[in-house]
Amino acid sequence: MSGGSVFESGRFSRRHIGPQPADIAAMLETIGAPSLDALIEETVPAGIRSSAPLDLPPARSEEQALADLAAIAEENQVFQSCIGMGYHACHTPAVIRRGVLENPGWYTAYTPYQAEIAQGRLEALLNFQTMVCDLTAMEIANASLLDESTAAAEAMVMCHQAGKGGKFFVADDCHPQTIALLRTRAEPLGIEIAVGPIANFAALSAGVFGALIQYPATDGRIRPLRPLIEAIHAAGALAVVSADLLALTLLTPPGECGADITIGSSQRFGVPLGYGGPHAAYLATRDAHKRRMPGRLIGVSRDADGNPALRLTLQTREQHIRREKATSNICTAQVLLAVIASMYAVYHGPEGLAAIARRIHCKAVTLAALLRKLGWEVDEGPFFDTIRVSLGQVRAFEILRLAESYRINLRALDDHTVTIALDETTGSLAAFGEIFNHGNPPDFAAEEDGDGIPAELARSSAFLTHPVFHRYHTETELMRYLKRLESRDLSLTTSMIPLGSCTMKLNAAAEMLPVTWEKLGALHPFAPTQQAEGYQRIFAQLESWLAAITGFAACSLQPNAGSQGEYAGLLAIRAWHLSRGAGGRTVCLIPTSAHGTNPASAAMAGMRVVPVACDAQGNIDLADLRAKVAAHAESLAAIMVTYPSTHGVFEESIREICGIVHAAGGQVYMDGANLNAQVGLCQPGEIGADVCHLNLHKTFCIPHGGGGPGVGPIAVAAHLAPFLPGHSVIATGGERAIGEVSQAPWGSASIDVISWMYIAMMGPDGLTEATKVAILSANYIARRLAPCFPVLYQGANGRVAHECILDVREWKDRAGIEVEDFAKRLMDFGFHAPTMSWPVPGTLMIEPTESESKAELDRFCEAMIAIHGELSAIESGALDREDNPLTRAPHTARQVSADVWDRPYSREQAAYPAPWLREHKFWPAVARIDNVFGDRHVFCTCPSPAEWQDDPK
Amino acid sequence: MSGGSVFESGRFSRRHIGPQPADIAAMLETIGAPSLDALIEETVPAGIRSSAPLDLPPARSEEQALADLAAIAEENQVFQSCIGMGYHACHTPAVIRRGVLENPGWYTAYTPYQAEIAQGRLEALLNFQTMVCDLTAMEIANASLLDESTAAAEAMVMCHQAGKGGKFFVADDCHPQTIALLRTRAEPLGIEIAVGPIANFAALSAGVFGALIQYPATDGRIRPLRPLIEAIHAAGALAVVSADLLALTLLTPPGECGADITIGSSQRFGVPLGYGGPHAAYLATRDAHKRRMPGRLIGVSRDADGNPALRLTLQTREQHIRREKATSNICTAQVLLAVIASMYAVYHGPEGLAAIARRIHCKAVTLAALLRKLGWEVDEGPFFDTIRVSLGQVRAFEILRLAESYRINLRALDDHTVTIALDETTGSLAAFGEIFNHGNPPDFAAEEDGDGIPAELARSSAFLTHPVFHRYHTETELMRYLKRLESRDLSLTTSMIPLGSCTMKLNAAAEMLPVTWEKLGALHPFAPTQQAEGYQRIFAQLESWLAAITGFAACSLQPNAGSQGEYAGLLAIRAWHLSRGAGGRTVCLIPTSAHGTNPASAAMAGMRVVPVACDAQGNIDLADLRAKVAAHAESLAAIMVTYPSTHGVFEESIREICGIVHAAGGQVYMDGANLNAQVGLCQPGEIGADVCHLNLHKTFCIPHGGGGPGVGPIAVAAHLAPFLPGHSVIATGGERAIGEVSQAPWGSASIDVISWMYIAMMGPDGLTEATKVAILSANYIARRLAPCFPVLYQGANGRVAHECILDVREWKDRAGIEVEDFAKRLMDFGFHAPTMSWPVPGTLMIEPTESESKAELDRFCEAMIAIHGELSAIESGALDREDNPLTRAPHTARQVSADVWDRPYSREQAAYPAPWLREHKFWPAVARIDNVFGDRHVFCTCPSPAEWQDDPK
Repeated sequence: MSGGSVFESGRFSRRHIGPQPADIAAMLETIGAPSLDALIEETVPAGIRSSAPLDLPPARSEEQALADLAAIAEENQVFQSCIGMGYHACHTPAVIRRGVLENPGWYTAYTPYQAEIAQGRLEALLNFQTMVCDLTAMEIANASLLDESTAAAEAMVMCHQAGKGGKFFVADDCHPQTIALLRTRAEPLGIEIAVGPIANFAALSAGVFGALIQYPATDGRIRPLRPLIEAIHAAGALAVVSADLLALTLLTPPGECGADITIGSSQRFGVPLGYGGPHAAYLATRDAHKRRMPGRLIGVSRDADGNPALRLTLQTREQHIRREKATSNICTAQVLLAVIASMYAVYHGPEGLAAIARRIHCKAVTLAALLRKLGWEVDEGPFFDTIRVSLGQVRAFEILRLAESYRINLRALDDHTVTIALDETTGSLAAFGEIFNHGNPPDFAAEEDGDGIPAELARSSAFLTHPVFHRYHTETELMRYLKRLESRDLSLTTSMIPLGSCTMKLNAAAEMLPVTWEKLGALHPFAPTQQAEGYQRIFAQLESWLAAITGFAACSLQPNAGSQGEYAGLLAIRAWHLSRGAGGRTVCLIPTSAHGTNPASAAMAGMRVVPVACDAQGNIDLADLRAKVAAHAESLAAIMVTYPSTHGVFEESIREICGIVHAAGGQVYMDGANLNAQVGLCQPGEIGADVCHLNLHKTFCIPHGGGGPGVGPIAVAAHLAPFLPGHSVIATGGERAIGEVSQAPWGSASIDVISWMYIAMMGPDGLTEATKVAILSANYIARRLAPCFPVLYQGANGRVAHECILDVREWKDRAGIEVEDFAKRLMDFGFHAPTMSWPVPGTLMIEPTESESKAELDRFCEAMIAIHGELSAIESGALDREDNPLTRAPHTARQVSADVWDRPYSREQAAYPAPWLREHKFWPAVARIDNVFGDRHVFCTCPSPAEWQDDPK
Repeated sequence: MSGGSVFESGRFSRRHIGPQPADIAAMLETIGAPSLDALIEETVPAGIRSSAPLDLPPARSEEQALADLAAIAEENQVFQSCIGMGYHACHTPAVIRRGVLENPGWYTAYTPYQAEIAQGRLEALLNFQTMVCDLTAMEIANASLLDESTAAAEAMVMCHQAGKGGKFFVADDCHPQTIALLRTRAEPLGIEIAVGPIANFAALSAGVFGALIQYPATDGRIRPLRPLIEAIHAAGALAVVSADLLALTLLTPPGECGADITIGSSQRFGVPLGYGGPHAAYLATRDAHKRRMPGRLIGVSRDADGNPALRLTLQTREQHIRREKATSNICTAQVLLAVIASMYAVYHGPEGLAAIARRIHCKAVTLAALLRKLGWEVDEGPFFDTIRVSLGQVRAFEILRLAESYRINLRALDDHTVTIALDETTGSLAAFGEIFNHGNPPDFAAEEDGDGIPAELARSSAFLTHPVFHRYHTETELMRYLKRLESRDLSLTTSMIPLGSCTMKLNAAAEMLPVTWEKLGALHPFAPTQQAEGYQRIFAQLESWLAAITGFAACSLQPNAGSQGEYAGLLAIRAWHLSRGAGGRTVCLIPTSAHGTNPASAAMAGMRVVPVACDAQGNIDLADLRAKVAAHAESLAAIMVTYPSTHGVFEESIREICGIVHAAGGQVYMDGANLNAQVGLCQPGEIGADVCHLNLHKTFCIPHGGGGPGVGPIAVAAHLAPFLPGHSVIATGGERAIGEVSQAPWGSASIDVISWMYIAMMGPDGLTEATKVAILSANYIARRLAPCFPVLYQGANGRVAHECILDVREWKDRAGIEVEDFAKRLMDFGFHAPTMSWPVPGTLMIEPTESESKAELDRFCEAMIAIHGELSAIESGALDREDNPLTRAPHTARQVSADVWDRPYSREQAAYPAPWLREHKFWPAVARIDNVFGDRHVFCTCPSPAEWQDDPK
């Protein structure tokens, strides 16, 4: 028995890995492998297998790892943050913290593709969209984006698509990190960024297709939007406003001033600072632009019974359908954070939010008056929460240093100007008085002053008028609302979610506990780095561990999603070519089997995508590869390759592929989506890749959060290390760093600790054993189901890697059953569907991961076998070809307990097709959702209660 | 509008109180009261209303209160604890901490009286009972008791009942706090406690009805049990063993040695030390004694469909039925802690538990060898985890002081002997080497030594063989098991639980967060008090606040349940009488309407109960009171009175009642069960009571935990303060303290912070407003339902207090419907039943509390009105008199979706009798449970899977 110690008492790995030694033995027998190591030998080509164990610290117990991490976290210093710049301290209401952020029922859910078992978070996201539309007064909002700066970039691209000209104007009082990120994103696309005073816009407007205004500006000032937007429109350009949602409770919203797109952050709606992330950005626009919106959009449709039902709508699947013609590679949202922000609004309601905003504003007005009384020159504003103080001859750094002695961080706007951003957590202003009085208490107290927002800027329109923002203002009501929504969603707390290439493994409680530690949550990303020594140590350790796992020299944690990692990696390759005078190398080879984000990212990085064919076994066609390399030898920049392949196979020829590309001067980008099959067995760096992104939310246990957050760091070989992403505010990255790709220097810093904990607790042997068991489990499922459904792609020895593709296409003809019917019918068995129709249309791709027990794998197999029995019954005519449990799945409790049942199969067959369902039944909240209706009637905010109750049945 | 500021933005009170100002106005209109204050004037007699506001600190925000409490908690110092004495540090598995201890779905549930909607925790408790039976090798175990020492006292009383003689022998190597508590409990009952070396038992055995042995002993030694128990049996006495559950994985269990009763603690099974509690004690015995077992017992029965179903069994309801003849006043368990302990066993399984035990034992053996090598005399044992070191001329306190410098606490057994108890968390032994080497590292390392348990003591029998202890060893599986069980239980996260006299109000997340802070959880109760300065500050503040609220001079937090508070209060009264030479005062007057615990507690305190009649309005009959006082003038000790009365009315005559008793030399004990109607409006101390217990788990927001823990402090007038309970190990209580009534000096210390947070966040005005709204809500429900169901008792102005009794008795004749049918039918509406048949048989008592919103109150009223409609339909013949939705409630999903439906009412009427159920339906896990079958076939451990699956339908 391999890995004996991995299953020892006290080891975390025995808790993380599902099958225990006796199960592993039984599974090996089923698949006919003499041992786990023998299976790995049959599966992973000998030529690429690592010889040495992973160079990582030995496994720690859960308690030891928590104690060690706590000691590191203690090295962080939490100062009161008045830095602003789009990040504000706030209170996470305890009921939301406990009910959502600390609740696996919320955080372990997957992206809500299977809408019938995701109505809970879909409703929360619809609330988010409604909240954004209401506060911004825009017509349609998406379900969140990765961060404010990339949202600005997405808006820029929308404008670019919609308009004419090659120039995007950015007001110079936007947040500096946003300006810098726009430069990163614009340059490969050939867009020119023009930065200047917004007052001068007219003079600079030639060739401008769009313009970005910050509202309020980064220095706190509020400019009347309407005249500015009119000027932008007059130049034929679209106006993008980056707006503070909390300020919009008091200020005229951008939509009422003519804005075309409004973007921003919802972080201060209850999401901890987290040293930069994650948080949910938003993007809202006019209805006219809705089909150009990036990201996820929740819409109201109806189910088979005509009841209202929510779903992802307008899934243009940019990356899947348009591939290299896609204008965005965004394929996720920040669902968990958007849920928190939306619930913050639900809990406070419009009056509560406005009261918070007024309290902060009043504090800022009071502070301004205090400082003026002390003789300082405070900008007249109008301002919302941030005041700007001109220091005359005094140097800003002196004030900052004095403030730090009071454990307060201010922002130096320039050498002789500071800004002070207040927030919901601001208490007494006494310390500010001392800071601006040479360290002595002023001999007068701060006096409350009135409202500083002039009437012409003040909001007059109502917002958040929907009942959902009025019903749940007490803790009891909100707690029950959260539980009610949670109960509608199938998460990992219910059953396995066997999504190919998404690696839904255990998100252990010990990994999640640190996420809500104050020493990690309360740091501003732009705080002086010496206050973040704990974080720096965590980053350094995690980067070195990830480098050791991938066999690379260096790592950047900045990209906050896999797609962002792809983009960053390609930019690094591009920068390397440029640094060698090979700017003409712009061709990116991408196998036809690749994830859709690959071509989209390549296009965003300014590369030209050339597809490479795959052979019948799903492997890269070497002949075609050679031909394409030859055809583009001079212009070859890179190849993007997923390993094991998206077909779930360890391609034997991977080293050869890398060699061919390298020989032609190209670089090899490895997509890390399937890294869970490699950890401890082989290494991208050793195989021949130059850069690889990792999905910490797949392989390294960050929960999917119901559709985000993600973390997508990149690891690179030594020659690419100098090009790792930098940052305009806080220095990071290589010495020849590409520009920032995320708003925060270390991306979604606060959740990196989850992966830190995972690696620390598993240790090198635990991680390796997990990989082996993941491969075993996939092979076990493939073998058990092969008699029913052919397994599409296999390696040289008939083994799959960590996932397997079941071919169910024949049942279309044999029984009139499509792959979607399988997915919906699995819900009746209490399971989430595997990946549907990807990478091969009409098939199911299953990735069980190492965390699922043999009992759970067996239960899933039995469900699939039972479905096979139903298929046979349809084929034989025992079940009706049109009206059967598959075509009409899923079945709701209301349907099967209705007085009328007129179907040709029984109620019990509908709802209780397997014996374990008597023990525990998960009920889909709605019947099958009508996709066509939803796409035809796009409705993306909370419907009025009358509409909800309008039940046609 | 009263209480305006209470509803201000930022106030916790607006989150805690359900009805908001507009709702309050509407509710006042419904009940015909001009204002909230006017309602209070009509409800609370003028003569007792407080004139001054509560003398408490002003309300703090949630964040401020958390920050303040955190600062206080920082004053605690967490040392490694090697004190032992029944308390051992342990690891709470993170998945259990997050899934149970931090999950309102578990902790807000009520006691599982309504078994059909409590199958989840009933299963967990059945696991607990099975675990205890298996580990102790006893035949039957209850669902937990309050603590190990009181469990010993309960065992003593069982022996007393069963046997002859007046003497209980206690081995002198039992834990000292247990010996002391047995003395407290024995003395009023006239039982003599004989303490001596167990080896001398034969010499001391005359008149002994039972004997207690600690296994292993308090100094760590393990004595072979069998000969000791044989000697006890030879003397005609019963043998009680207090056994360490973890040690029993390695040692021959008491049941195999002939023990009659085994008791002990399950604390070290994953429950934090918590400075003394709460934790779950256990009591197991032979089948022959099962009807004498105190506390709760879970049994397997079957439901209406013949499926296995769990319930509380053998509910002898000692206190309810036998009242003053009861031998125990225990009416609760420590459900939440028993669930944690049971899940710890489920997670580790038998091998895992034994591995932990062996690891600890091996460490202890190693340490003993190390100390011997250093020249110390270590007791030969055999021992399990605790070694005893004789210090020769060295003084124990010197060693303890040196150990403290290493942040380690040892125990001084006597002036020249220390013991060192190791546990699951023990790491390196290096510090011990230094402590016993004059502060210098020894020049040799500790060497692992072998097993020190001789074969004749070693356990050979299997345990925890049931599949439940083998299926959930991975975190994924345990997480799902916890969620599955949670989903079967209706808790406050689902809907209101309107239990009269149980005050199921909001348990706010901000109140619960501190419970899992390490600075509160990791302290041993017998650690030097200077390490617990934070706790001391919390106790002092909370005691002063509770004294201010009750109008008393002093307070003791020691009693860990309401019943224990009653007992402690009566003992204090008894001690006061004795101190005045009035030992003849032993009569306790108790109104016939009192809670059953009152007479039981009085009997336990050695008092003679004399009942006092109630009049037709449910008030104490003053004439009868005067007569009884006159009849017992010389012997009158006290009266026990609940206020407002158990009938939910503020009796006008309360001051007069107190006066009559005082005039006769008696004391007034006020039962605080209904204190939620008094806080801020009137004060027990001012009304005339001398002592009052409080249920912190009712009025002050400690969650019910599914049936425990509770905290039942007593507040007393100045003359009783000297008699507040003391403690034998850590000094506490008054200067003439009665003996300890709980095992730990401050009882369930770690959950006192919940009440601290509640009072700190509500502030005096918030608390008072809450009381007013609680009264308003009860009157609102009474008014809305009065057209359907008569309200039984009302005050002088037609108002009820904070609860109301609905008389449904007439429907027995009119429609053949009993009160239980109401309770079961309410489940179909998604509600937990109110209190049934108490204090008046055949009625429902409803206490809505202040936390329920008007919308929820309305929903409950609509359910009751719908039920009234069904009653009328039965009466009119529209529904069948025998087979109708009430008699056959509750309805399960399996029933209403079964292929066969042969009932005369429809499926939809069965399952969806109200419109909101379409939005959210809570399904009872089983159909109505057969109580008679369950009581006839008492089966109290996990049935074999074959039995579970044996589904007769």
